[in-house]
Amino acid sequence: MAEDREALSTELDRIRLQLQALQAKTGTQDITIGQYLLTRLAQLGVTSMFGLPGDFNLGFLDLVEDHPTVNWVGNCNELNAAYAADGYARIKEGTLGVITTTFGVGELSAINGIAGAYAEMVPVLHVVGVPSTTQFKTRPMLHHTLGDGRFDVYEVAVSPFVAYQAHIMKKSEAASEIDKAITECITKSRPVYLTLPTDMVYQTISSERLHIPLSPNFPPNDPSKEAFVIDQIYDRVTEAQGDVVVIVDACVIRHCSRKEVADFLKATSFPVYATPMGKTAVDENSKRYGGIYVGNLTDPEVKEKVESANLIISIGSLLSDFNSGNFSYNIPIRRHIELHSGHTQVQYAIYENIGMKQMLPKLTERLEHFHAIAKNLPVPAFVKQLPHQDTAVISHLWFWPRMGYFFRPKDVIVTETGTANFGILDVPLPEGSILVNQILWGSIGWSVGSCLGAALAARDVGMERVILFVGDGSLQLTVQELSPMIKSGLRPIIFVLNNRGYSIERYIHGKHRKYNDIADWKWTNLLDTLNDHSNYDVESYTVTNKMELSDLLDNSTFANAGKMQLVEVIMDALDAPDALQRQAELTGKGNAYSAK
Amino acid sequence: MAEDREALSTELDRIRLQLQALQAKTGTQDITIGQYLLTRLAQLGVTSMFGLPGDFNLGFLDLVEDHPTVNWVGNCNELNAAYAADGYARIKEGTLGVITTTFGVGELSAINGIAGAYAEMVPVLHVVGVPSTTQFKTRPMLHHTLGDGRFDVYEVAVSPFVAYQAHIMKKSEAASEIDKAITECITKSRPVYLTLPTDMVYQTISSERLHIPLSPNFPPNDPSKEAFVIDQIYDRVTEAQGDVVVIVDACVIRHCSRKEVADFLKATSFPVYATPMGKTAVDENSKRYGGIYVGNLTDPEVKEKVESANLIISIGSLLSDFNSGNFSYNIPIRRHIELHSGHTQVQYAIYENIGMKQMLPKLTERLEHFHAIAKNLPVPAFVKQLPHQDTAVISHLWFWPRMGYFFRPKDVIVTETGTANFGILDVPLPEGSILVNQILWGSIGWSVGSCLGAALAARDVGMERVILFVGDGSLQLTVQELSPMIKSGLRPIIFVLNNRGYSIERYIHGKHRKYNDIADWKWTNLLDTLNDHSNYDVESYTVTNKMELSDLLDNSTFANAGKMQLVEVIMDALDAPDALQRQAELTGKGNAYSAK
Repeated sequence: MAEDREALSTELDRIRLQLQALQAKTGTQDITIGQYLLTRLAQLGVTSMFGLPGDFNLGFLDLVEDHPTVNWVGNCNELNAAYAADGYARIKEGTLGVITTTFGVGELSAINGIAGAYAEMVPVLHVVGVPSTTQFKTRPMLHHTLGDGRFDVYEVAVSPFVAYQAHIMKKSEAASEIDKAITECITKSRPVYLTLPTDMVYQTISSERLHIPLSPNFPPNDPSKEAFVIDQIYDRVTEAQGDVVVIVDACVIRHCSRKEVADFLKATSFPVYATPMGKTAVDENSKRYGGIYVGNLTDPEVKEKVESANLIISIGSLLSDFNSGNFSYNIPIRRHIELHSGHTQVQYAIYENIGMKQMLPKLTERLEHFHAIAKNLPVPAFVKQLPHQDTAVISHLWFWPRMGYFFRPKDVIVTETGTANFGILDVPLPEGSILVNQILWGSIGWSVGSCLGAALAARDVGMERVILFVGDGSLQLTVQELSPMIKSGLRPIIFVLNNRGYSIERYIHGKHRKYNDIADWKWTNLLDTLNDHSNYDVESYTVTNKMELSDLLDNSTFANAGKMQLVEVIMDALDAPDALQRQAELTGKGNAYSAK
Repeated sequence: MAEDREALSTELDRIRLQLQALQAKTGTQDITIGQYLLTRLAQLGVTSMFGLPGDFNLGFLDLVEDHPTVNWVGNCNELNAAYAADGYARIKEGTLGVITTTFGVGELSAINGIAGAYAEMVPVLHVVGVPSTTQFKTRPMLHHTLGDGRFDVYEVAVSPFVAYQAHIMKKSEAASEIDKAITECITKSRPVYLTLPTDMVYQTISSERLHIPLSPNFPPNDPSKEAFVIDQIYDRVTEAQGDVVVIVDACVIRHCSRKEVADFLKATSFPVYATPMGKTAVDENSKRYGGIYVGNLTDPEVKEKVESANLIISIGSLLSDFNSGNFSYNIPIRRHIELHSGHTQVQYAIYENIGMKQMLPKLTERLEHFHAIAKNLPVPAFVKQLPHQDTAVISHLWFWPRMGYFFRPKDVIVTETGTANFGILDVPLPEGSILVNQILWGSIGWSVGSCLGAALAARDVGMERVILFVGDGSLQLTVQELSPMIKSGLRPIIFVLNNRGYSIERYIHGKHRKYNDIADWKWTNLLDTLNDHSNYDVESYTVTNKMELSDLLDNSTFANAGKMQLVEVIMDALDAPDALQRQAELTGKGNAYSAK
C-alpha cells in the first residue's frame, strides 16, 4: 500500500512538472530554476542529456525525466557521458551537448572529456548538482568532499578547461547566469561549467526572459576594417593571378561555417583540400576537391599542387602535430592567407576581430569573378583504388579503401585515435557524410562515448547510418558505453579492429613491448552480455580475411544497419596505415628518450 | 628478418636495463633517473605499478617492464588504475600505490581516483610521462594539449588533490625531488604528483643517495609538551574513574597505527568500538570490542554504552556524514579526548604537533594500571544472528549476517559505496581480516579497481581470499577492470548485488524514478567475455534465493577460492540495509529540494 501511494505520488509529480513546463512556454508566470534551464536547452534543440544520477542532482533529474522533449540518457560512467555530450554537439550543429553529474566524484570523472571538448572546440555544458547554498557556507564534512571543508576545489580544477563558470547561488541571478553560461558555450564553442545547488533547483523565478531565445553572440566585424581586409585579400588574389588553393580545417566545422565555405568554393571554383581535422568540412566528391593536405605526410601530387600555388587560403586552421604532419607545412607566410573564427591574417598582417563566418559571404562576392581562371586550375582526382594483395589477411592498406565502397551519403563515421584516424584519411567519403574524430586531444576510448552521442544526434538531424571504427585497446577504456547504445535502440555498426593491443603506441615506441599488449576479449560476446534483458536485436561477427569482410559488407541486411552490429576485424598487431607509421616515427623522435 | 632483429634488440635492451638496475643496487655508479625512481619504489616494497601506456611515458615503461621486482599491471583505463593504486596502498601498509599515466588525457582521467585517495588519506604516487623539457619551453601544439600552448594546466587541475608536486626538469635536482615526493607521499599518506619529461628518463645521475632508504618523516612530538598532554589525559581518566570507552576510526588504519592501538587496548582493557571507516582497525572478535558507533544510527545498546561513559577517547577520528550518522555524535566535548595523527585534543584544549602514533606507547604505559577497573566495564557482545525469514528472497537483513558465516581470518573484504558499505557494518569480521571501503569520498565504481590493487597487495602480504561486494549499478562504471584481475591470475570472489539500479540513490531520492534504473546485463557472462583467450579458469553463478546462496557458500570448492568467481545475487530493487535507509533519509533531507 505504501509503495502504491509512493508510486502514485511520483506520477503526480511527473504530471505537475510537465504542466509547469508547458505553462512556462506560453506565459510569463513563475518557473523553477531547474525548469528555466531545461527550457533554455530545449529552445536550442537539445533533446538528449547525458550523465549519471548522484545525490546532489536527483531533484534536477526529476525535472529532466519529466521534460517532454529533453530525454535523460543514463550513461555508465561520467567520462563516457562527457564524450557522448561531445559527440552529440559535433553532429547537431547550432546546439550544444549537455552532461549532468554530481559534486566531486561525478564531475571529476568527466574532466578529461571536458578538457577534450575544450581543446577540440565543442560546445558542452556541464551541469553539476552540488550541495545546498547553506552547505556551501557551513561546509560540513559531507561525502564527496575532501574532508577539509574545501568546497571550491572542483571549480578550481575544471577552470583551465572551460570558457565560463556559472554558480547559481542566488535566485535573483539565476536566469541571467544560465543565459550567460549557455550563450558563452555556443558562442565560444567551448565547454561551460554550471553548478546547481540542491536548494536552488526548485526556487521559482520569472519566466519572462524565456520569450527571447538565445543565440551565439558573435562580435560583429567592424565594417570599415572588414572592407580593408577584403581589399587586401583581393589584391593578393589578383597578384596571384587567381592561382589560389584553399585548405579547410577543423574550425570550419566547429564554428558552423560549412555553408559559407561551400558557397565561397562554388562561386570561386578554387581548388580545395582538407586537413585531417577538416575532413568532410567540404564535399569530398566535388571535382574541385583534391584530398588531404598534411604537410610532409601528404600524397606527393597533392603536396606539389598545394605548395606550388601562388596563394594559399587556409580557412579555420588548427595546426596541431597530428593535423599538420608534425608541423611540416611548407607554405611561406608571403603566400598565405588565414581566415579564422576571430581574426584574419594576410601574409604577416594580423587583423583582430575579423571573423570568417561574417566575412566569407562578402569575400565570395568579391572574388567570384576569378571563377573563370580558377575553374581551369587542375585538381588531382581524390580516389582510392582497392590495391591488389596476394594475402587474404586484412591489411590496413586494403581495409580502408574497401570501406570506401561501403560508405553511403549521410553516414556518420566516427574514428578512434589510433589506426582508424589515420586509415580513414585517404578514403573519399560520400557527399553529406560526416567524419568525427578527436585528432588534437587524442584521448583513446573517446570514440565509443562520442558514437553514442553522435548516434542520438544523427537520429534528430536525419543522418542515416552511424559507423564506428575503434581499436581493441581503445574500446577497453570505455566499453560499457555500448550498453546505453543498445538501451537507446540505436543501431551503429561498430568495427573493432582487433590487433591485440595499442598499435599506435607500438609504432611510436616499444614495438615488441608487453605493455602495449592487452587481454584478448571475446569481442563478439559483448553486445549479448550488455544487452538489457536481451530486449534488443543485436548481432556480432568476426571476420578473419578479406573475403569474409567483403561478403559481410556486401550483405544488404548488414549494410542497411537495421540493428546494432559489431564486427571484430582480425588484423596483424604490427600493421598500421602508412600515414600513422610516418607520423609515429616523427612523434617518437620528438619524445627523445635521448640519453638511451 | 627485420622483425627478428628488432625483437633481439628489444631483448638486449631488457637485459641491459636489468643489469643497470642490479649494478645500481650494489654500487654508487650512475643510474638513469627512471631507474632511480624505480629503485626507490622497490626499496619501499612496491611490486605492482598501475596505469596505461601513452606516448609520453613509453620510455619509462621500458624500465618498468624490465625491472626485476616491480611488475607493470596494464589497466583498462586510468580511473580504474588510480583506484587500483589506492586499493594496493590500503592493504600493503608502509608502502605506496603507484600509477603511471600520460600527459593530459591519461592523467586527467585519473583525477577522481587521486582526489579520492586525498580525501581518504591513501598514499598514491602519480607518475605522469610528459613532453620533453624543451617542448615545455617551446610549447608546440602537440596532441594531448589544449592547442593554446598552456602546458601547465594539468598540474593546476590536480593541485587541490595532492600533498606535493615534483617536476623533474633538471637532472641535478632529480634525485632529491624524487626522494622528497616519495617521502611526502608516505609521511602525509596523501597522493603526490610527479612529472617525468621524456628527455629526463634516461639522463644519468649518481646512485649514491640510494644507500639511505626513505621512510616516513614524522615530526617528533616535543617531549615536554607530550608529557604534559599525557598528564592531562591521565587526569581525565582518573577523574572518570577508569570508565572510559575508546572509538577507533579511519586514521588508525591510514596512519599505520593499528599495532600501537592494539597494544594500548590490550594493556588497558578499555571497551572499544569502531566507526564505519574504522571497522577492522581493531580485532572484531575481541571480547572488549562492542561493534560500530555511528551516532544516532548506532544500535541502541552500543549507543547507550558509548554515550554514557565518563570519558570517550577517539583515536584517528574522521567525522564525515556517512561515518558519523550524519553528524549525530552525542559526545560532549567535556567528556571527549581525541588522538589524531598530527594533534591531540583534550576537552577543549588543542595540542598541535602531538601525534598519536608516537604518544600511544607512552600513554599505554601510563594508563595500564586502569586495566583492573576497565576489565569489568561491560561490553555488549558484537554478534549478528541470522534472522529467520519466511520468504526465500535474498534480503539485506539476511544476506549480511549470512556472509558473516562465510568470512575467514585473513580475508580481504572490499565493499562498494551503496548497500554493501552499510550492510557489512553489523557483521563481525574474523580476526586478521581487513575491510576496505571508501565511505568519505564515495565514488561509485571505486571498489572494482580497488579490488584489483587490494588483491595484488594481498598476495604480497600473505592475506588469503579477496571478496568484493559491489552493486550492479556501480560495477557498470568500472567493469573492464575485471579483465586485469583475470589476466593477473587473481582469484577474488565477486558478489554482484543485482537490484537493477542505484538503490542507494533510490533511498535518497527518486525511489520510482527511471534515472535510477540501469540496463540488466548478463552478469554471469562477464568473466567469460573478458577472459583473455579463455586462458584462465573462471566461474560465474546466479543465486536467486537463500537456499541457492547458502548452498554455494557451503561448497568448499567455491569457498576455497581457487579461481576467479563471480556470483550474481538477485535482490529486490527496493531493499536496502537498515543503516542505509536511515542514513539516506538524513542525506535526502540535507539535500533539501526545499521549494518543491
